[in-house]
This record gives sequence, structure tokens and C-alpha cells, in this order.
Amino acid sequence: MVKEVLRVGVIGCGAIGKEHIERLINVVAQATVVAVYDYFEEVAQSVATKYQIEACESGEALIARDDVDAVLITSTDDTHAVYVFEALKHEKYIFCEKPLALTAQECQEMMAKEIQIGKRLIQVGFNRRFDIGYREMKQAIRAGEIGEPLLIHSAHRNISQAPGFKTDYAITRVAIHEIDITRWLLDEEYDEVQVLTVKQSRKTTGDWLNPQLVMFKTQSGQRIDVEVQTDGAYAYDIQCQVVGENGTLNLPDPARVLKRTAGQYTYGLTDHWAKRFIDSYDTEFKEWAASVLSDKLVGPSAWDGYVSCVVADRLIQSRKSGNVEKIELVEKAEIY
Amino acid sequence: MVKEVLRVGVIGCGAIGKEHIERLINVVAQATVVAVYDYFEEVAQSVATKYQIEACESGEALIARDDVDAVLITSTDDTHAVYVFEALKHEKYIFCEKPLALTAQECQEMMAKEIQIGKRLIQVGFNRRFDIGYREMKQAIRAGEIGEPLLIHSAHRNISQAPGFKTDYAITRVAIHEIDITRWLLDEEYDEVQVLTVKQSRKTTGDWLNPQLVMFKTQSGQRIDVEVQTDGAYAYDIQCQVVGENGTLNLPDPARVLKRTAGQYTYGLTDHWAKRFIDSYDTEFKEWAASVLSDKLVGPSAWDGYVSCVVADRLIQSRKSGNVEKIELVEKAEIY
Amino acid sequence: MVKEVLRVGVIGCGAIGKEHIERLINVVAQATVVAVYDYFEEVAQSVATKYQIEACESGEALIARDDVDAVLITSTDDTHAVYVFEALKHEKYIFCEKPLALTAQECQEMMAKEIQIGKRLIQVGFNRRFDIGYREMKQAIRAGEIGEPLLIHSAHRNISQAPGFKTDYAITRVAIHEIDITRWLLDEEYDEVQVLTVKQSRKTTGDWLNPQLVMFKTQSGQRIDVEVQTDGAYAYDIQCQVVGENGTLNLPDPARVLKRTAGQYTYGLTDHWAKRFIDSYDTEFKEWAASVLSDKLVGPSAWDGYVSCVVADRLIQSRKSGNVEKIELVEKAEIY
Amino acid sequence: MVKEVLRVGVIGCGAIGKEHIERLINVVAQATVVAVYDYFEEVAQSVATKYQIEACESGEALIARDDVDAVLITSTDDTHAVYVFEALKHEKYIFCEKPLALTAQECQEMMAKEIQIGKRLIQVGFNRRFDIGYREMKQAIRAGEIGEPLLIHSAHRNISQAPGFKTDYAITRVAIHEIDITRWLLDEEYDEVQVLTVKQSRKTTGDWLNPQLVMFKTQSGQRIDVEVQTDGAYAYDIQCQVVGENGTLNLPDPARVLKRTAGQYTYGLTDHWAKRFIDSYDTEFKEWAASVLSDKLVGPSAWDGYVSCVVADRLIQSRKSGNVEKIELVEKAEIY
Repeated sequence: MVKEVLRVGVIGCGAIGKEHIERLINVVAQATVVAVYDYFEEVAQSVATKYQIEACESGEALIARDDVDAVLITSTDDTHAVYVFEALKHEKYIFCEKPLALTAQECQEMMAKEIQIGKRLIQVGFNRRFDIGYREMKQAIRAGEIGEPLLIHSAHRNISQAPGFKTDYAITRVAIHEIDITRWLLDEEYDEVQVLTVKQSRKTTGDWLNPQLVMFKTQSGQRIDVEVQTDGAYAYDIQCQVVGENGTLNLPDPARVLKRTAGQYTYGLTDHWAKRFIDSYDTEFKEWAASVLSDKLVGPSAWDGYVSCVVADRLIQSRKSGNVEKIELVEKAEIY
Repeated sequence: MVKEVLRVGVIGCGAIGKEHIERLINVVAQATVVAVYDYFEEVAQSVATKYQIEACESGEALIARDDVDAVLITSTDDTHAVYVFEALKHEKYIFCEKPLALTAQECQEMMAKEIQIGKRLIQVGFNRRFDIGYREMKQAIRAGEIGEPLLIHSAHRNISQAPGFKTDYAITRVAIHEIDITRWLLDEEYDEVQVLTVKQSRKTTGDWLNPQLVMFKTQSGQRIDVEVQTDGAYAYDIQCQVVGENGTLNLPDPARVLKRTAGQYTYGLTDHWAKRFIDSYDTEFKEWAASVLSDKLVGPSAWDGYVSCVVADRLIQSRKSGNVEKIELVEKAEIY
Repeated sequence: MVKEVLRVGVIGCGAIGKEHIERLINVVAQATVVAVYDYFEEVAQSVATKYQIEACESGEALIARDDVDAVLITSTDDTHAVYVFEALKHEKYIFCEKPLALTAQECQEMMAKEIQIGKRLIQVGFNRRFDIGYREMKQAIRAGEIGEPLLIHSAHRNISQAPGFKTDYAITRVAIHEIDITRWLLDEEYDEVQVLTVKQSRKTTGDWLNPQLVMFKTQSGQRIDVEVQTDGAYAYDIQCQVVGENGTLNLPDPARVLKRTAGQYTYGLTDHWAKRFIDSYDTEFKEWAASVLSDKLVGPSAWDGYVSCVVADRLIQSRKSGNVEKIELVEKAEIY
Repeated sequence: MVKEVLRVGVIGCGAIGKEHIERLINVVAQATVVAVYDYFEEVAQSVATKYQIEACESGEALIARDDVDAVLITSTDDTHAVYVFEALKHEKYIFCEKPLALTAQECQEMMAKEIQIGKRLIQVGFNRRFDIGYREMKQAIRAGEIGEPLLIHSAHRNISQAPGFKTDYAITRVAIHEIDITRWLLDEEYDEVQVLTVKQSRKTTGDWLNPQLVMFKTQSGQRIDVEVQTDGAYAYDIQCQVVGENGTLNLPDPARVLKRTAGQYTYGLTDHWAKRFIDSYDTEFKEWAASVLSDKLVGPSAWDGYVSCVVADRLIQSRKSGNVEKIELVEKAEIY
């Protein structure tokens, strides 16, 4: 007796790739991994050996395999688009880590292809939509518990970054999560965005700007502020407060044992995003596998990938120009 | 490509049985269910049809099947022992919901059989040991964060009970969890136990005693109080505070969105044990499947089942006698 | 232009005496201190010089002064009764720190004297009744917010004690506050009390028993547990949870700035009762001055002092006997 | 025996005036009120009768009295300056509720007068500097607990406003507190300020803008956002989070009894500023009386009143212009 499972091929076996492979094999009951590819052959080989699965010679070869039902793309950012296009050619389901592409133009082409095929194939890795806290917030907003949302105050604080980090990444790799989760919470698109310079932290280990203060204004006039600390923070700490006409909602800290020792009440905070959001990743892939098996994608779409590209681009422009920047989007197709 | 999984046969398809079947099939990646049995044939049949698995004619037939690697027993309390003995005869791994048996004598016989076989086969369903909060507490105690533990204050509060609830069940089905988790946290056995009568709640829907105040004293003199509310409470709420020489540890509430509305700060509490401890059940079965597949059981043992039987028995006696009752245990075998 | 104020004479200029003198002079707008006495003449003299007031030769001389409207007794415990009787003789208002007397018999005689005079003159220093947290709890209970109260879980934890501390003091000087505040919260007298021995803390600096677990049962069957830590605790920490049929009430920690640093959420706890309850002391004396000026005492009475003597006595007896001890009280007079 | 007290004359017997009179007479041990004046003669007369003090014919007459050591000005905003100038003429100590004047020009003239006299006489009613929470925050910042402060996120939320409220008042009467407390916390002056329009709340009872988002940038580049809700909020709620290089500090909620009922954890929030900040008002006047009696003012000065005028003016300008506005200040004199 065996379970029916989604057979996934994984392109990219770096840190997050390895985590997702373990997750698909040993946590997600409805999925497994059948083949992997990595730019560094020995990395792919070692993963393949560990799980007794296939290592492929190229991403293209992996995508073409008959036993690959769906493709997970966790390779470097600049290679996402090429693999997405290849998988679209085979009309296979795709889970692509953010960003979907480096340019909005490429995202538009992906959407054109999906529209031509007649259904969504792409899901983008905005994992926070699967976090139990954000979901409870969205549910409370929809239930009208705080009336109409008017503002959001949020913060995204990190302890450290991998070598090679740059100022732009504060937007494209860090605030990208707030770009997505905020419009998802509010069910609105942005009208204007801005980056404000802030007094700099001496704890920044490189030469990038840290912190930055990111501002969004939605089409209905809601204001969002996002404090982005990319380095040196006291913890990996995510804060989100939605302010409505009748009340506020706060994302809670993960539940930790409450201690009283040495004159203090205290509980631990998380030090890494992988721990803070581990449950959301599990849920993300469980729901993805289930939706692909039932042939109906519901997670973050190519449209969401497109919007986040446009907004990130305008934010970087705002930092350089010092101005508020307008958001202009193409028309949204029926299927999104 | 398929996953290697533990093939489980399930005896008992009631509410919790159904939940565990769903869990084993769709949540636990390393396990699945191949056969089910229930006293009510149509119940077993309907479950079997839903998952396209086998319904067996008897528990004995299910246990005997070659494709059943391990047996999960969630039938009525009075039938646990007979199925455990049957599975031991086949030297199959057993997961038995608490209580392991109705009498300490039967537990002793099970242990004798395990000792004869030369290894543990039985795991008892004390799910709280898999709860992330209790685990963090145990880790902090072991790390010496609060010095030597001296007292525990705990509460087990329920909103309602199924029809037919009796005063004894407050011990055997409710406080049974605190009987186990407290000795697990402290790594000590009890010396004396007592039940104290308390002013009764008018919200109790039947004629059983509610609340009751349960007291344990460990062999080293630690005192534990357990407030047991079986009916009418404001929520399903579990509280546990370990008091040590240098500090205290409190089990946290599950993380919920923090709201400010209508003049109040507020967050939601859980209304049912199945929601409060859902993660612990998932972890319990994931770890059980992994430990069985690696042929080395580590979860709550027949010894733990035995001790909880003895203690529950003495507590019920204390309620009747009005006295403090002594705990006397047989010698603990090497394998536990 | 001057304020009309209550002119207080203070007997006892030790640590708490000095604090109350400062409070009466510089915090309580409706009171002042006109004369002081202390067993150590130079202590009284130094206080008198500091505030430019009179130092008296004896407590009796102080009580007899025409410009002394009311007497505050903060001398050593064994001298309380003699000064109370002296002040009663002059029919002057009395504020006596707890205990009112060393024996219940003396308290009964004080009550007899008050009854003879026809009104209350004595207030006992149970300051917690003036704490904003306990008051909000009592108000919520009265408003029926948690239904009928059934249990109270409480803790009284101390960092250290003055030299000469003895096991009995854990009751007469520490748990004495819970003896009083609990019956005040519940508006009930106790039926039975008990002290349970507990595993001892190695942080105790002397040879007294620490901790102790104190249990009360009220006449209607409510159960109260009080964990008493007299030495070595992580903070001066007072906890009180009232459990009712419909909910629970918890005494809050004092509001402190919430910090997130070094991987932790944290806020400070208080290290001394004088800080923890400073507001309650201020309120206690403000209300006392106002009630004396209006010739109508409303604070803790000689009856409350009497009951606490009886209960403390039975608790000490219970510790020695190992038994539950019965509480027997004389009849309560009209004026209390 | 009487206390030596500061004899205060009060100009303005409206709601807040009455509160302060009661406070000076019955709460502040070192002060009392000897005379009052109000534009409405019968109001002053009724207050005078209640406390058996003098009602004066004019503010000028009150200021001139020999038995008036210091003047408290709580009349309407537009009359503050004239009474301050009159009291300066008599070289009497002045406590003036904010705003010190309607224009920065008048504040400058007051400072010129103080400099000429050679010492500070004016204290402005920025009560938050006396709040225990803000004080603990400032102390923690100074102690370096969070490193260098980089940002502040704050909110000032109100349930309702008196009739006649206007959009400008959101700055001059509401955000004025954040204008002051933020520069006090950071010990820095502002460089730029801005008001951002926000989606409007349908709960606003008049035609003023609500909410508004106020932004400050300090001279060292720290960014402060202040959400200003003037009407319709769920409570009177003040939030302040200082973000430093090493951690954050949050102003706590006032301590309230923690309740668990009906499926929720909950505690009450305050509905009015007079309750939320009652302790800070008490402390403010106690410290003012003490500092005046010792002839050395230390509270918020004419300089602080001046800066808040300049900043409020620039914020209103920003709302109208839609631009970031520069803050330009005169040189700060030695005595401030």
C-alpha cells in the first residue's frame, strides 16, 4: 500500500533548496521529490544520494522527465525566469521562489503564456500568506472586526545577511515580503511608494543602507510604513499592526515558555526566518501539493509576482530619486 | 516513485480514531493506514471506502495481517488490554491511546511480555510530551534555568464533556494527562497523592463532582496542585507553572492575533483539546512512525501506562477515603 | 493660607516608620506628623530634627498630647497591643501596623473596648486592600464577571529577609497578607487551614523552612493555595488568580517598559515590597486621613486583626501537627 | 502644626482647571490654592465657595496678590500669553498649560524676559515627561540598553473630541504631546516635519481630517512616525516604540486585571486621557511645587513651549502644502 503523491523535480539545491527537498520528502504527505538539479553537479549528486533519487544533468532535462509532475525552482534569482519559461513550455506546474523574475516585463510574458494555456501553472513562494498569524489577521479584517483598515505599521528586522548583500536587496529580498503580504491583507493595489533614509545603525557589517523606512499608499489611501532592518537587530522579528476604524490587530510573537528569573519576566524571540516561519513553509507546500493534485492552483500567482516586481523597482527608484514614485500596472487578467 | 512508509492498522474508528486515520494518511509523511476495524462494521466500512483501504472483520484479523506493520488502538477503554495482548503475541508495534489498561495488574503483565520479548513494543498516547511548550519547559529545567524545581501549579479546564461522564473520569480521562506530564517534567515518581473537594460549580451539566483539586507529592518532596475543571469553563485552557529555586516557567497560550477593540485588549483562547494540541498529535505520530521504522521506540512506555494506572487508582481512592494515599510501584525494568 | 490636616503622632521610627512619616508629611495632603517616639531616643530625635517636629519621651506621652489627633503604631510587634490599649483609653484614632496583637485574646479585648466606646477607632495596616489591582479584582468579582469564585491560586515570593527570621514569620509576617486579602476578596471566613511541607530551596540563607505551601478552605468550600517563598526568589513577586465558574482573574504585574534586546522579550519585576506596593501605602494613608477627618473609619478593622491572629495561630499549629486545623471565631459585633 | 506649602493662584476654572485645583489642594502635599479667577464670574465663585478660597475680579488682580506665590494658567489657549506676560512682570513663577502661546514670536519674547530676569520662571504643561513609562524609557535609552535610537513608531488615539474641534487641533492639541515627548526622549531637535493624508475614518463625528500621519526627522536623521486618531478610536490609547541599534522599548499599557472569560483573554484599556495620565499630572505638580519652593525650576521650559509652537506651525503648513517642511529655530539660551 502506498500513497498517491505529487512527484516534484527540484532545480537548485542550496540552503533553502535542501530544506524544501527534506520538507517535500519527509513532511508533506502528498508530495515527494524524484529528481534534483544544481549548477554545482556534486551538490545535486550528494542530495540525490542521500535520498536515493535522480540527479539530472540540466534543469531542462529535469523539467522534461515524465516522472516529474511539477517543478520547484530555488536556484539563484537571475535564473528563475528561464526555468519558469521552460516549464511553461512543458505545461508543468511550477513553484518558483521569489522573485518570479528580475523584471516586470518577464512576468508579463509568463502571464501571457498562462493565459494562452488557459489556466494558472505558476505559484510564487510568498510563504507568509500561509502563516497562521497573518491568516487570522486577514480573517478578522474580512469579518469586519476592526472596521475599514486605514493604516499598517510593520517592521522586518534581521540579525544578519549573507556575504555580498547590497542596499537593493533590502527591497528585493527583504521588504518584498511586506510588499506582498500587505496588499494581500488589504486586498488592494498600491498607488504610490517611497523609501525614506534613516539614521544608520553602526551594527551594519557591510556598506549597505540600514535601516530603511519604506512607505506605501494604496489606491484607497491607506498608509503603510515598513521599518526594514537588514542587519544587527536583536532578533529575527516581524511585526505587523493593522489599524482600522474600530480597532487594531497585531501579529503575535510565536508562543514560547514564559520565564521569571533574575528580576525579569522574559521569553525568547526567534533568531532566523527559517524557524519563525517553518510552519508557514510546511503549510505552503502541503496546500500547493493538494491544489496541484486537484488541478486547481490557489496560492500566490504570476500576477502577484509581477506586482511585487513593479513595486520593488519603484521603491529602488524612490531611494535614488528621493521622490514618491507612482505605481502603474497592466490590466489584470480574468484568471488571477 | 513512492515513499517508504509504516503501514498501520487501526482498531477503533470513533471520533479520535477518525482523526488519527486522517493524520496518518495525510499528515504523517512516513506512515499510512492499510486496514481498519470497528465494533460497528458500517463505521469501519465507511472509513475504508473513503480512503480505499481494507475493513477487517475483527481486531484479531487486522493484527494478523502481513501488511500491518503496527497497530493503533483507539477503541473503547475497556478493550485496550485485549488488543494490546493480541498484538504483543504477534510481536507487532503498538500505539495505544490512554489508558493502557483498566488495571495496573494488566499493565504489569504487558511489561512482563515486553521484557520476555526483549524490547519495547508499546507506546502510550500521552500526547502532551510532544507539545512544543512542555518540551521547552523540560529543556529549561534540564538546563538549570530555574534551579531545582520545588512546586508545580497547574490547571486543566474543560468547556464540556460527552454524555455519560462520571466523577471518576475527572481522574482517568482528564487529570491523567497531568499525572503523566508532571512526572515527565520532573523526572520523578510520586510518593503521595490526594483529591480535595472544592466548592462546586453550578455550570456542571451532570451530577459529577466539578471542580476537584488534585495534589501530588513526589519522592523528593515536590508539591503539585492540579485544578481540574471538567465542565463549564470559559475555554479549554491548560496551565502549568513550574516553580524552581531560581525562577518560574509558564506554559504559554497558543499564539493568537492580539486585538484592541471596544475598550479592551484581547486574544482568543482555544475551545477544544483537539485544536489546542493538534501540533502535539502530529508530532507524536511523526516521531512514533520514525522510531518504529528505525526499530527503536522512545515515546511513553508501558511503564508510563502502568504508573498512570496506579496513580489514578489511588486518587480515586483518596476522593472516597478523604485521606492522603501512598503510591507503591513495582520495580522498574531495565528496558524502560 | 494653610490646609486643614490630621495631626498624627508616630510611635516607632524604624525603616517602615520613617517611610510612613515621610509619606504623611510629604505625600498625604490631608495629614501631617506632629510628634514621634522611638525606643531609641536618638532615632526619634534625628527624625524630629529633620522635619522640625517634636520627639516625645514615651509612647504614652505622645498619645496624651493635645495636638495629636491620631496615633500611628509602627513599633516592634510585641509592643503594638500596649500602645493600642493606651490610645483607646484616650479614645484617639489608631493606625496599627499588622499584627494588631500577638494573641487573639488581646484583639478580643480591643474589640470589647471599641464596642464600649460605641465606634471603631482602630485600623490595621493591611495595605493590599488599597492596591489598585486587588481592588479591580474585587470589583470584578462583585460585578459577577466570573460567576461564583471557587478557588484562588496565589504566591508570595521574597528575595530575602532581615536577620533573625524564623519559620513562624513565614506565616505571621508574610502569609499574613494572603490571610487577610483572600477573605476580603471572597467576603468569607475560613473553615479549615493547613500548612504543607515542600521540598526545600537551597537558596534559603538561614535555617527556617522555605518554601511552605499554605492552604485555606472557606466556609462555603472555596479552596485557596498560597505558595510562600520567604527567601531566594527571583523577585518580590505577588501572584493571585481567582477562579470562578465563568472565568478567572489575575493580579497584573506593575506596568514596566517592554524591551526586546539580545533575542528576548523582557520587562523588569520589582525587587522589594516597598516598591511593589508604594501606591497602595499612599492610598491607604490618604483614605485613612480622610476617613478619620470625617469621623468614620472604613479600612481594615480590629475584627480583621483578630481573624488574622486566629488564622496565623492555627496555621503554625498545623505545621507542627501535620493536620488540617479548624478555625473557630467569636461572634462578630455589629460595628464591624 | 501646619505644612509649608506653595500658595497658587489659578486662572481658568474649566474642566482641567477644576481638576488641577482639586489636585493642588488635596493631592499635592506641598501646594495649595489660595485664589481663583475665571472669565465666567459665577464659575470662579462656585469653586471659591467649595474650597473656601478667594475668587478674584481679574487675572491681573489675582497675579498681583501678595499671598499668590505662583500662577497656574489653564484659561483658553488664546489668553495664555497675556497672563504669562503679566506674571513675568511680577516675577512670579508660572505653570502654563500648553500651548504656551499661539505664536512662536510671543514665546521668544517670553524667553527674552526670562533671560533679562536671569532665571526660568515658566513651566509648560507637558505632563507626559512625568509619566512613569516614558521616564523608564528615557532612562533605558540613556543607559544605552538599545544602543543609538534610530526610529520611533508612535500612536495617539482618541475616542472623541469636544464640539468645535478642527483639523488644526489634531496638531496643536493632540500631536503636540508627541512633538514634545519625542524630542525629550531623543534629546534632539527636529530638522524636517511632514503631515501625510490617510484614508479617512467614517467614525469621525465632524468634518475634520482623521486620521493624520505625522512624520518627524531629527537633526541626526532619526525618523518618527505618529499616527494621530482624533475621533472614533477603540480607546484612549498611547503607543510609543523606540527602535535602537540593539533593541526596542515599548511604552506599556497601564496595569489592569487580566481576565479569562467567554473564550478570551482580555484586559481593559483606558477611555480618557485624564485617567491614563492621572499619575503623571500628580507627579508633574508635586515636582513643580517642590522645584518652585526650592527656587529652581527643572520641568519643561519656555524653550520647549517655543519649539512646540514652531513645529506645530510647520506641520500645519505641511498639511496644506503637501510638502516636507524645514524646522528653523533661534539660538537656545544658556538658561534652558
